[in-house]
Formats: sequence, structure tokens, C-alpha cells
Amino acid sequence: MKHSIATVSLSGMLPEKLRAIAAAGFDGVEIFENDLLYYEGSPADVKSICQDLGLEIFLFQPFRDFEGMPRERLTKNLHRAEKKFELMHELGVDRMLLCSNVQNNCIKDDTMIMDDLYAIAEKAALHNIKVGYEALAWGAHVNSYRHAWSLVKEIDHPNLGMILDSFHTLSIKDDLTELAYIPKEKIFFVQLADAPLMKMDVLEWSRHFRCFPGQGQFNLQYFLAPILVAGYEGPLSLEIFNDEFRAAPTEQTACYARRSLLYLEELTRNHLQYNYITAHQSLFSPAPVAQYESVAFLEFAVDESARTELNHWFEQLGFQKTGQHKSKDVSLYQQGDINLVLNSEPDSFAQHYYAIHGPSLCASAFKVSNAEQALTRAKQYGCHTYEGRLGPKEQFIPAILAPDGSLQYFLDNAADIHQTDFFSKPNDQVAYLNSIDHFAIGIPPETMDIWTLHFKSIFGFVTEHELTLADPYGLMKSKVVRSIDSTVRIPLNISENKHTSIARSFTAYRGSGLQHVAFSTKDIFETVAKLQENNLKLLKIPENYYEDLSAKFDLDEQFLNKLQAHNLLYDEDEKGGAMLHVYSEIFGNRFFFEILQRFNGYSQYGANNTPVRLTAQRAANN
Amino acid sequence: MKHSIATVSLSGMLPEKLRAIAAAGFDGVEIFENDLLYYEGSPADVKSICQDLGLEIFLFQPFRDFEGMPRERLTKNLHRAEKKFELMHELGVDRMLLCSNVQNNCIKDDTMIMDDLYAIAEKAALHNIKVGYEALAWGAHVNSYRHAWSLVKEIDHPNLGMILDSFHTLSIKDDLTELAYIPKEKIFFVQLADAPLMKMDVLEWSRHFRCFPGQGQFNLQYFLAPILVAGYEGPLSLEIFNDEFRAAPTEQTACYARRSLLYLEELTRNHLQYNYITAHQSLFSPAPVAQYESVAFLEFAVDESARTELNHWFEQLGFQKTGQHKSKDVSLYQQGDINLVLNSEPDSFAQHYYAIHGPSLCASAFKVSNAEQALTRAKQYGCHTYEGRLGPKEQFIPAILAPDGSLQYFLDNAADIHQTDFFSKPNDQVAYLNSIDHFAIGIPPETMDIWTLHFKSIFGFVTEHELTLADPYGLMKSKVVRSIDSTVRIPLNISENKHTSIARSFTAYRGSGLQHVAFSTKDIFETVAKLQENNLKLLKIPENYYEDLSAKFDLDEQFLNKLQAHNLLYDEDEKGGAMLHVYSEIFGNRFFFEILQRFNGYSQYGANNTPVRLTAQRAANN
Repeated sequence: MKHSIATVSLSGMLPEKLRAIAAAGFDGVEIFENDLLYYEGSPADVKSICQDLGLEIFLFQPFRDFEGMPRERLTKNLHRAEKKFELMHELGVDRMLLCSNVQNNCIKDDTMIMDDLYAIAEKAALHNIKVGYEALAWGAHVNSYRHAWSLVKEIDHPNLGMILDSFHTLSIKDDLTELAYIPKEKIFFVQLADAPLMKMDVLEWSRHFRCFPGQGQFNLQYFLAPILVAGYEGPLSLEIFNDEFRAAPTEQTACYARRSLLYLEELTRNHLQYNYITAHQSLFSPAPVAQYESVAFLEFAVDESARTELNHWFEQLGFQKTGQHKSKDVSLYQQGDINLVLNSEPDSFAQHYYAIHGPSLCASAFKVSNAEQALTRAKQYGCHTYEGRLGPKEQFIPAILAPDGSLQYFLDNAADIHQTDFFSKPNDQVAYLNSIDHFAIGIPPETMDIWTLHFKSIFGFVTEHELTLADPYGLMKSKVVRSIDSTVRIPLNISENKHTSIARSFTAYRGSGLQHVAFSTKDIFETVAKLQENNLKLLKIPENYYEDLSAKFDLDEQFLNKLQAHNLLYDEDEKGGAMLHVYSEIFGNRFFFEILQRFNGYSQYGANNTPVRLTAQRAANN
Repeated sequence: MKHSIATVSLSGMLPEKLRAIAAAGFDGVEIFENDLLYYEGSPADVKSICQDLGLEIFLFQPFRDFEGMPRERLTKNLHRAEKKFELMHELGVDRMLLCSNVQNNCIKDDTMIMDDLYAIAEKAALHNIKVGYEALAWGAHVNSYRHAWSLVKEIDHPNLGMILDSFHTLSIKDDLTELAYIPKEKIFFVQLADAPLMKMDVLEWSRHFRCFPGQGQFNLQYFLAPILVAGYEGPLSLEIFNDEFRAAPTEQTACYARRSLLYLEELTRNHLQYNYITAHQSLFSPAPVAQYESVAFLEFAVDESARTELNHWFEQLGFQKTGQHKSKDVSLYQQGDINLVLNSEPDSFAQHYYAIHGPSLCASAFKVSNAEQALTRAKQYGCHTYEGRLGPKEQFIPAILAPDGSLQYFLDNAADIHQTDFFSKPNDQVAYLNSIDHFAIGIPPETMDIWTLHFKSIFGFVTEHELTLADPYGLMKSKVVRSIDSTVRIPLNISENKHTSIARSFTAYRGSGLQHVAFSTKDIFETVAKLQENNLKLLKIPENYYEDLSAKFDLDEQFLNKLQAHNLLYDEDEKGGAMLHVYSEIFGNRFFFEILQRFNGYSQYGANNTPVRLTAQRAANN
């Protein structure tokens, strides 16, 4: 389907916005009136910029507070409308958004409102303009599409139709069934916005917290499906008021905006198929999501000195160096199902990454059911791919760029890099650590929505509820993205404050970076004893924490003493699950390691213990 | 009265918080449990730190989810309470905050809840602990102080009393009259928090948006007065959950926290006196607010080159250099009632300010009814004063430090620095500009509450409603502080985003700084013609803006053409007032000048035109 976006959804000056919109592959735009008003060029200039960029202007918006005003204002309002119709001709757009009146003095009389709407439709007809009426969720009288449609239907004027907006409909939890019964020629335009569910004033919610489809908590496919069933074939358009996007890099926002529409198309197609309704032919249909089985390996960019140091940490953690790359300065460490890679190959991707970010996670690799399929899907979604240089007999591993420019590899059973690319030896040590339970990334706060859309659209992952957690110097928020069956789990951490641990690691990394890797074990006491024997430095937990545990939970004193002796943290969930976990000290103000054991299906991440961990880390590192 | 603050109100590690609290002059603290749990020392260590700092521990908090739980939990909960009582003994505190149960499975039965409260009171008696019961606004069953009091009164146990919290009471708009009838021995503690009025979930509101008394929109004196009438003589304690404070500099936050309690005491004293109730003897009673008559002068820190350049701008604006300081490198510019000062005196406050901030406003001076009184009041509020070095026969001008370290002078009729300190000549030019209408300061976003409290407490100013305005690269917010009769008006501007105009000027200033000075004129067309004749560069306003004006307002075409020819902006308010205003270009990416004329009592600041101004400025400066 055709894709459109309102200029208000992006930051920047109007020409900059239009260039980014065209570059992201949109077919056209809604011109938000203020963007035009504040622009130094004429409407004809804007028309010509759009033509040069291959963008159609689908809509001019908004026209406000028109219908049901005290009678003396009607003539003025019609005059105002005509002025805008003239401007629209210069712009080369034939569709205007008229939003329902929000003024206190709006007269709540359907007959009068219909008279007014008829009057503007007649004026619009003279100018060959189509006026789309949109019910705002906070409209003074008309605040649902159903009310708006009852008026538009009754008026039945060819120049008056409906503009349907997902936010205004889903925010008031309106009944969606009538959407399917609006004749397609009466649907003048469709605007799409997602949003996180929030208990707040709907106007504030709408003005500041809308986001792209897939980034919020609305089920937008339930909104779009009946509109497509009604036969709508016009553009799908994004109208997003969002404080972060207003300040975010224009081109990147436009790119993810476009991807969000593809994602919504796919969701809607699936939803229609699930309900045995023939899907709209033109709906985006990428390769299905591959199955994500595990984290295949994590690759660290290092220099000589960091390699030596991390090699030492890995050994203390019980890893064995089991492979040396045949042609590159790359080593492989192994324990249980865990593979870690240290890369210090000159002039490689890793070393370019190191030059910017220092010792850091430069690539994460995922074991998938079908790597080619995963890559195809990513490409179809417009994701950038990466192809490194290959040595003789080396295997090609499909890779894409994550939002921060690090690599994400897809490996399937066909790939056995240990055999092809490495001189390998078997691991002959006992494995205390078994697998990567999760790994957490610290990202800039304004990129959270981009990252979640990346994992949802390309990987088919789901997100868990965002948590807010106390750092001694501010707040952090954490949102987990994970594969549906939890085989891969990645907490994404952000902080808006300047002096939190995450903010400190941002500074060290100059951008986003690994926060920690959590390894699972099958006997945490034995494992921790072994790690202590290896002199791995564990984060010291204050005694007061254990006093509180004894007040909070039914734990016997002997057990508590054992926890304390091992610096182990304890958490329970509401379903009777429990977790024991322990942290290493921090590697160079950057990342650290966690060792954990889950009991009785505990499915959380020990977030209750995050504040004590953050405070203890600060005490240790100040 | 005694002053206290909960440790959760500040950022940092526990000892750091306690040191800041003592330094700010508090008498004691509430220990927030998590601060203790995460601390590496023992409760006895905390007790001894407090003793060394001269701080009393008034309260241990919170104890949660105790009463009305399913019966099998009661024993566990009492066990938990006893553990905490033991810990409290180590801490040396005899009062615990028990907040009303918020769990879904809380049994909504007053009789059962009273049994449970009686049980904990009995246990507390054994440990010589007093349990204060506090109704949380989102309590599952008990959510008002009146409900809590009906239970506590009925139980009538000496170890069970009330904790009254302004947020939980005022957020639900509860009736305050019963507060005066709680016997003083039953009021175990009083917690105070202000908040901006927000339409949102009360729990979220409470957890993230509380602020210090005087910084929000609650009338805290209406809450505190009846409690004092009841005879309460215990500490006034701040319990503030605020995302900004959690990340703000600990010492500065503690300082303003203390000042907010003094301010609340003054407000409460006035409120009681107004109602013919004898005020609590110990309530803070500073010198009354002086009357603020005008901005006496604005002083710019400059070097040679900025002095030359600004001298030129001032001349273009129609100012005349009318004075040269007798002993310092300081010149005075004058027009109408406006005085501007350029200071490049070596080794002066201005030059130290210049060294950090570059060309900037280093001092603002206010004409007051009584300068000594204004200074006394500021001192009583703990404000830092400043005394510069004086030359022979020079006058001493009382000055205090603003929150950003710039100076604020108080001048009254006794002061005539023009005569004493300057070689002056009379201004022989026609005055086109008459007075300083307002001057706006850009400040770091986390300091907005500090600035407003500064102006409210020291100056007795009021604040206007905060506005959110669109910059092409993000949002800015603006809140006006002004004298009651609007003789002095200062918009405070903030932006959370990195690339807005305000953020850009922050970078230039390395901190807060002047955004613009608005001069009023009595004939704006004549004035602008004169300024254009003087070659003052005005900000060019796009033509589209005037097209829109003609659609929006009843303005004839000739008038509109005249506006456009002068780059004048137009605004109307709802009461029929109007304003015409024009902007200069920006001086070195820092500040600019506005010339305005108000009609028919227009009392706003043309904020409707701020977005077009910001966009035009960006277009001119990119």
C-alpha cells in the first residue's frame, strides 16, 4: 500500500523533513500547517520540493474549531476555510483534515453541526477540495468516529468524508466493528499511531507519547483490518506527536517510521488470514520469522591489553580457549553451550568498532532455524546487511546492523564455523556455566523505541513491560525483548540522568554498549565456590540486604548465611518461582557478568535486586 | 519548628545524603528503608554518622502491606515488623511509618484491619516503638486520613497514631477540616510535599512528580494550618519522590529543600493570621517582601570585542551612553526608563563571570521599596549575599546570588549610583523604547523548581502556568515568574532536548544565560522604522505567517501589509488584548532583543508566535 507520514512526526526544518521522508521510501506526506507557516518559502515552493523528491502531498492538516461555534463565528470560519483552500491549491493537495471542535463554547447540537459541515463541504466543492472529518478523542461534542460517521453519513455530500485515526479510536477503547461498514469512498484518509497504555489525560497522552506502529501497546491490526475489509485502498499515514521524535535525528526516525508501516501491514495480513479473510493483495508479506534457538556467540572488540585482561576474566569464569581463527586475530572461548569471541584483528569491523567504542561487544550471533530466511526478512524490512572479508575456506555468515551499528549474525545448522574457520580443540574442562541466560545492552534513552521495533519486526521478538528502577544518582528503565519461547532474552536499559551507572558506561563507550552477560548454572553454590577459587572478584552485597531478606521471605538462617557468604542475591516471583544470582565486579567501568540459577520456572530478571546491585557497584567503584 | 527530610528525597549514597542534609541545617531525617538496605555499613554505623552530624533520626519508613492481609500472612507480617523494630533500636529511632495496604488481596473489613493494627501496636509497645499509620491515596481500602483516623481513634492505643502527608490528602482533594480535631498526641509525624496539578494516575504522580513546598500548585498552608491548630509541635518533614531531584546535585537540593520549609512556615503563619488565629510562635517570620517596582538595570559581562559590538547594537537600538564609571571599566546606556550596563573591569565579578560564560548577563538589578529589607529577607532565607569591592565615595549596593551564580541587586530611592558612581551626562535623544517589559533566562531543565522557589520565597513573586512550545528540534517549556503587579516579569525557559535553540545557547554560555530582553514602546511602527533606519537587523518573518494571520484574525489587508513590511508579529488574548512585537537577530548565538507594544491590557508574552520565531531564527542562523 502507499505510505505517508505527517511532517509533524519528525524534527527539523521543512525541507530537511521532506528529504528524509523521501529517502526513507515514503510515497507522500501530510503537510502539517505549522510546518508550512514557519517556512520561508511559498506553498508553491513546497509543492515543487515535493515534486522533485517524488513525494505526493496527500493531505493538508489540521483545520480546527470549525463546526458548532456561536453563529457570529460561522462566516469568519468559512472565510478562514476558503483562505486555506486557496493555499491548498498552491500546494497541490486536494484533501483537508477537519478535526472535531474542542472549544468550550462549541454548541452541542448535531443538527447545527451538520449544517456547518454541509456548508464547508459546499465551499470545498467549489474549490474541488475534499474535507475529511476526524473525531478527536477529546472533542467537545463529537469524540468518536462513530458519532462523526453518523453525521457524515447523514449529510451525504461528495466533498465530505471521514478521516480515521487509530489513536483517537483506540485511546477511548471504541468499538471497531462499524469501521468495516463505512463505504470505501467515504474514507478519505487513514492515520496510524501507536502508543504505550498510560493512565493520564488523553490530550497530553496524544500530544507527547504517540509512537510508531509496533512501538506501543495498541493492537493496530484490529483497527486497520476492518478498514481494509471496507475496501480502503488509499495511503496509510503516520501522524505521531512524540517528544523524543521531535528531537531525534530526522533521517533515522523517518527510516524506522517507514519500517513500522511495513510491520503493521504484516501484522494486519496475518490477522486477516487468521480470521479467514482474504488479505489485501498489496499488504507487505516478508519471509516469515525464523526460529531463534539461542545466542550462538558474543564477540568482543579488543586491543592487545583488553584481550589479555578479558582472557584472564574468561579463564576465571571457567572458560577455556578452544579455538584460534585460521587467518585472523580472533580467539574463541567455550564453556557449556556458551561461546565468546575476542577479536583484535587489525583493520577488521571489530577494530573499527574498537576505535570508536573501546573494549565492547561488537557483534552478537543468534542460532536460528534458517539463517538465509532470517537475512531475507531483514533485507525486506530495509535493514542494512554486512559482509566482512572472507579468508580462504571461511564461511560466509549473514549479518545485519543493529540500531547502534554493531553486528547481528544469523547462524543455522549449516554453519559450523568452529570446523571451517578455527583451529579448534575440544573443551576438556568441567562446565560450571551452561548457557547465556540473557545479555543486557545500555542504549541512549531516545533510541528505545527504535530498538524494540528492530527486534519486533526483524526478529519477531516480543517485549515485556518496562520497569523503572532506582540508581543512587537517578532512575534507569529496563525493557526486555525476547524470543517468544525465551530462548533469547535481551534487556534494553536506558537512563535519562547524567550520573547513573548507565550514563557512566555511555560515556566510556561513547554510545550504547553491553551492560552485562548473565550465564546460567545448574548449581550456583558449587559454581560460585569454583569462581571464588579462581579468584574472580564478586560484587560485595551489604549485610543489611540479608537482614531484610529474612524479614521478607521464609528463608532459614542457615540458608541466609550461605547466601551472604557467597554474595548471592535472592528473588521470588508471584508464581512461586525463585532465582539466585551473583555479580562479578565491573570490567573497566563498562560491563560485568552475572551468574544465575532459576528455580520453579522463575521468569523474571531479578529486577527487585537491581537497586542494591547498582548501589553496591557504585560503592565499589567510587 | 524542627525540620526533617526523608533520605529518598535526595540523590547519592546514604552518607553523602546525610552530610548534605546536615549542611543544609535540618534537625533530623527520615531513614528510607532502601537507603539503609543498600548501605554497606550497619544500622549502628548510620546512627553514629547521624550523631556526628547532629542529626536526629525522626522516623523509619516505610512498612508496607501489613493490615487486612489473608490470615495466614498475619503472623509472618508481625514477624517482619519485629525484625524491623530490632533494626530500629540499632538505628536509634522510635517511630515507624506504616502505610495503608495497597495489595489487591487486602480484605476490605474495618474490624479485621483494626485487629491487625491493634496487634502491631501491642508488639510495638513491647519494643517502645510508636507506629504511625498513613493513608496512601491509592490504598486498597484505607485511602484517606479521615478513614485512617476513624480506625486509629477507635483502637485508641498509645503506640498507634497518625502520620499525616500533604500529598496523599491534597491529591484526592480531601476535606481538611478534621485535621484540626486530631489530638496532638495522636499526630506522630507530618510529611509535606507539594506537586504540580496533573491529570494522571495518582500513584505515578506521587512517585515521580512531587516537589518541595512552593514549587508546585498545592496550597500546603491550608493543610498545615489545621495541624498546627491541633497543637502539633513535632518536626515538619519533606518526603519528595521526584525524578529530577533523584539526579540533581545533593547539596543544592538539600539547601532548597530547607528553604522550602521556611517558605511554607511563612505562608502558614500568614494564613493563620489572616484568619485571626494566633500563629504558632515558632513559625518562621522573615522581613516582609519589599515592593518590586521595576528592573533598575541589566549588566552584561563583556570583553573588549563584545563591548564594542554590544555598544554598536545598543546604539542601533537607540540607547545613548550616558555614564562612565568613575573608577571602573563600566559604562552605562540609557533610554526611557531602561538602563543597561557593560562591564569589562579587570578582575571584577563581571570578568570572572565572563571567563566562564562569555558575553552574558552577569547581574540584574531591581528597583525596590526598601533595599535593606529585601536583603534582610534574602539573608533570613539563607541566600548567599555578595559584596564587591567599592571605590572611594562609591555606594554599596546590596546583592544576592541567583541560583546560577549571577548577581541580583536591590536598589531603592536612597541609591543614586548615577550620581555617586558614574560620570554622567543627560540623555539628549528621543526615547523610542520606554521600559524593560520582561527579560527571559534560559536555564538547565533540572533547575526550574529551584529558580521558581528562589523568586517566590526571596522576591515574593508569583508564577504563571508553564507553557510547552515547539522548537524545530524539540520542545521548550516556559514559565513566567513575576511581581504581583507585573512590574517585573521574567520568563524562565528550559529544554530537555539537545539541539533546540535553548540547548544551543546553553552550550555557548556553559550554563544558564539571558535569552532575550523585551523593551516596550508606545508606537511600535514608528520605533521599528527608526530601528531600521539605524540598520538594526530584524528577524525576517515568513510570508506564510501573514497569510495565516489573515485567516485567523479580523485584520484588514493594509494593516497586514504594514505588519509584514516591518516583520511584526501579532497576537491576541481571550480578553480582547493584543500585542505587536518584533525581534532583532541573535547576538552571537546567545541573546536577542524584542520590541513590543501591548494593547487593551494584553497580559501574555506572545507565546503563540514563539514557534515561528524559533524556526525563523534557525533559518537565519543555520
